[in-house]
Amino acid sequence: MSENIKNWLLFILTVAVVILLSYLANSIINRKAESQFAYTPQIEIGAHEPRNVVWGKNFPRQYESFMRTRDTSFATYLNGSKLRDALGEDPRLVVLWAGYGFSKDYNQPRGHAYAIEDIHNTLRTGGPTGPGTGPMPSTCWTCKSPDVPRTMAEKGIGEFYKGKWADKGSEVVNPIGCADCHNPETMSLQISRPALVEAYENMGKDIKDATHQEMRSLVCAQCHVEYYFDKNIAGQEGVPYLTFPWKYGTTVEDMEKYYDQMEFADWTHPLSKAPMLKAQHPGYELFTTGVHSQRGVSCADCHMPYQSEGGQKFTDHHIRSPLDNVANSCQVCHREESGALINDVFQRQKKIKQTQLSLEELLIRAHIEAQKAWQLGATEAQMKSILMDIRHAQWRWDYSVASHGGTFHSPVEASRIVSTATEIAQEARVKLARLLGQLGFSGEVAYPDISTKAKAQAFIGLDMDKLNDEKETFLKDLVPVWKKEAAEREAQMPIRPVSSRE
Amino acid sequence: MSENIKNWLLFILTVAVVILLSYLANSIINRKAESQFAYTPQIEIGAHEPRNVVWGKNFPRQYESFMRTRDTSFATYLNGSKLRDALGEDPRLVVLWAGYGFSKDYNQPRGHAYAIEDIHNTLRTGGPTGPGTGPMPSTCWTCKSPDVPRTMAEKGIGEFYKGKWADKGSEVVNPIGCADCHNPETMSLQISRPALVEAYENMGKDIKDATHQEMRSLVCAQCHVEYYFDKNIAGQEGVPYLTFPWKYGTTVEDMEKYYDQMEFADWTHPLSKAPMLKAQHPGYELFTTGVHSQRGVSCADCHMPYQSEGGQKFTDHHIRSPLDNVANSCQVCHREESGALINDVFQRQKKIKQTQLSLEELLIRAHIEAQKAWQLGATEAQMKSILMDIRHAQWRWDYSVASHGGTFHSPVEASRIVSTATEIAQEARVKLARLLGQLGFSGEVAYPDISTKAKAQAFIGLDMDKLNDEKETFLKDLVPVWKKEAAEREAQMPIRPVSSRE
Repeated sequence: MSENIKNWLLFILTVAVVILLSYLANSIINRKAESQFAYTPQIEIGAHEPRNVVWGKNFPRQYESFMRTRDTSFATYLNGSKLRDALGEDPRLVVLWAGYGFSKDYNQPRGHAYAIEDIHNTLRTGGPTGPGTGPMPSTCWTCKSPDVPRTMAEKGIGEFYKGKWADKGSEVVNPIGCADCHNPETMSLQISRPALVEAYENMGKDIKDATHQEMRSLVCAQCHVEYYFDKNIAGQEGVPYLTFPWKYGTTVEDMEKYYDQMEFADWTHPLSKAPMLKAQHPGYELFTTGVHSQRGVSCADCHMPYQSEGGQKFTDHHIRSPLDNVANSCQVCHREESGALINDVFQRQKKIKQTQLSLEELLIRAHIEAQKAWQLGATEAQMKSILMDIRHAQWRWDYSVASHGGTFHSPVEASRIVSTATEIAQEARVKLARLLGQLGFSGEVAYPDISTKAKAQAFIGLDMDKLNDEKETFLKDLVPVWKKEAAEREAQMPIRPVSSRE
Repeated sequence: MSENIKNWLLFILTVAVVILLSYLANSIINRKAESQFAYTPQIEIGAHEPRNVVWGKNFPRQYESFMRTRDTSFATYLNGSKLRDALGEDPRLVVLWAGYGFSKDYNQPRGHAYAIEDIHNTLRTGGPTGPGTGPMPSTCWTCKSPDVPRTMAEKGIGEFYKGKWADKGSEVVNPIGCADCHNPETMSLQISRPALVEAYENMGKDIKDATHQEMRSLVCAQCHVEYYFDKNIAGQEGVPYLTFPWKYGTTVEDMEKYYDQMEFADWTHPLSKAPMLKAQHPGYELFTTGVHSQRGVSCADCHMPYQSEGGQKFTDHHIRSPLDNVANSCQVCHREESGALINDVFQRQKKIKQTQLSLEELLIRAHIEAQKAWQLGATEAQMKSILMDIRHAQWRWDYSVASHGGTFHSPVEASRIVSTATEIAQEARVKLARLLGQLGFSGEVAYPDISTKAKAQAFIGLDMDKLNDEKETFLKDLVPVWKKEAAEREAQMPIRPVSSRE
């Protein structure tokens, strides 16, 4: 009898466990189904589809997180909810970039979703009034939109680069997004811009050999790199063809050598007459010299870390500073308190910033001392090596500051670059002091009052009222025309449900 | 019957398991006994016992590993089994340190067990012939031996610092060892040198509040720091009293401010007449600005990591480069291949070394340009700010190179220091170019041929034959006398077995 009861109890227990397990299995299967549902394509995405919202129909989580790049709260949290005005904070920049667009306007960048708005708004693109007007070439659109590979596919690469920025205003309207990095058929990462592919070719490499992990950085390296506009590309003469100066390598010295050999200059500085180089944003190049890159970490690992939602793991497309997301970025590897990790970054930045700021003043002094030498009758021959020193020193300084995040990505290399630039800037000044002595001036050249952005812009002769007026008219009159034309064009572009394929 | 057999089998199995477990327990107890035996004091160690071999009787593992600091194979492995001659590798150092001992001789350091031999051998201590002779004060012994706290205890601190280095030759004979860091009663870490205790007092801190983990760095910081000889200590006037310049803090700028305020100079440079500062070896100070220190890592964690032997965990007293022991140092935290970790260190060192070497040439140019200005009749007033620039720039350069390991311990700070030094050195040269112009010279001052150590030493007027001859005589005639006197003195110092206490 007691044996019988024991057997019954065992039987009931077994039944209970089986029932509970089946509930668990059911729950797991349901979550799987949910995640499969989420990945079932709803619509067909055409080749070169530039509209991010269309891709978003198939990939809502990625699209929604991408749209959070419109959130500027982290970018502004250190600055009282305003975006920072780089020229207002440091008016020396105005003088360093005198004669170049960045002296007009240089603000803290916003997220990718703002790419089109922000290039409309900046004074650097001026106030065009229609096709063929304004200061910038069409090439300036290249990094701003998935409409770029679409237009290139439709018209040809050279045709895209040809003409003025204002010529393509109604073509390029969707901000940086899905088609810039993804293949619409397979969703795998792909390079959509010719410059990176060509740069690899010029180095004797094939970008198709890149691994998936490398691609998680290379899609960013389509834009976050140093580049220049080459008007001497065979078959495209006169067209400002977007080119990477990577032939000899990607260190600051490699690219300097490249530019020197071809005697390229972005502009001539109006004070010193030095043939200047503007470093664009060699973020990828400097990153590759740092320890994170050397350990195989990609851009996406920290700026777009994996996250989980509704039982599904996906890449966070809210591309942003890892400091806004330490738990999913840094702390995946570094088991330290968030505050300590952020402090590490700030400490590195602060130490290098100190030497960058000192260097800026030395560069300005070099420019005005060179101006003085010209005024006292210096010859081209006397000035030649001085102007090359100024060119090299400012290029290296600019490389270190324009590599956004560079003082964290590769602090020792960034600091090394600033050190070499400091030496060269001062070498120019030693030579200038000797030359000025020969020309009869052995004193100190007076440093201008450039204590505010307005004073600095007045010092280099910018008419800001005119620039602001032109911009206002452009935003009021031309941009609405571009938007209307684009909307009419896009209305003709179909969105087909997947079922329509049958 | 079958039930009976089952019971018997169970019984036999239990007996077998119990027997095996008792063997295991026995083995564990034996190992424990062995390790307790190893830590049972065999002899009594007296207060200020300077002989490491005596301590070694109670702590054979620590002593034996300490004795491996006589192994120079790692120090020499990059240099074909020879120790490196810093002046031979980089003759610029001779000119930078002209007028100061390091221009005579500067070799790669050997382990702690060589401390006495090496200070006898270096040309920097010259060739004394007896008490009261030779170039160096007694204070130079301070970091070399546990005989120092013994002699200080017997004669007083001020008395120890008083007089010539040669006066204490027969007192200071045991190399750096046990009593420098350990309390002989409790074996806990303790500070044996007054300078660090006094430096803490001057900062308003009490070193007795230091934690054990802090002590694992602070015992090293008794010597691996910046210091100077202060002849104006109240009550010790005229005595070169070993002092740390930490009153305002321990950054390069803090200490520079301290020295400037008291108008202290280690020596006057014979070329430029600048009032120079010699950075000693501010290793600890620079280390505290780096990420390892900020994470709570101590010197001992990497340079004396724990190891196990015979069932016993103990601190490896073979103090050495962690790169010679990556498995027990770096890899405790960093799960990377040894080669990758070593490469990280070398990369940091190489980048900073490049800027340090450039800076050396700028400093030499500043010295010879200043010399030229004096020759052309420059006044003290004209030279004042130039000489201060030279002083500051070379101090910062020296701080960055003399902080052994500094380019790894804190690469961004080391690089920052080099950057600021580069700016200041070049600023001196800008001023010199202007001043030379005013004095009628607008050319470039010729750079001397200092391509070898011999040429550089001849350039600054050193009579190396004389220095070498004096050293040879000293080693042949005086050192044996010191050793004999010390042996006779130590023969009177008892070694008592613990049992004798009863």
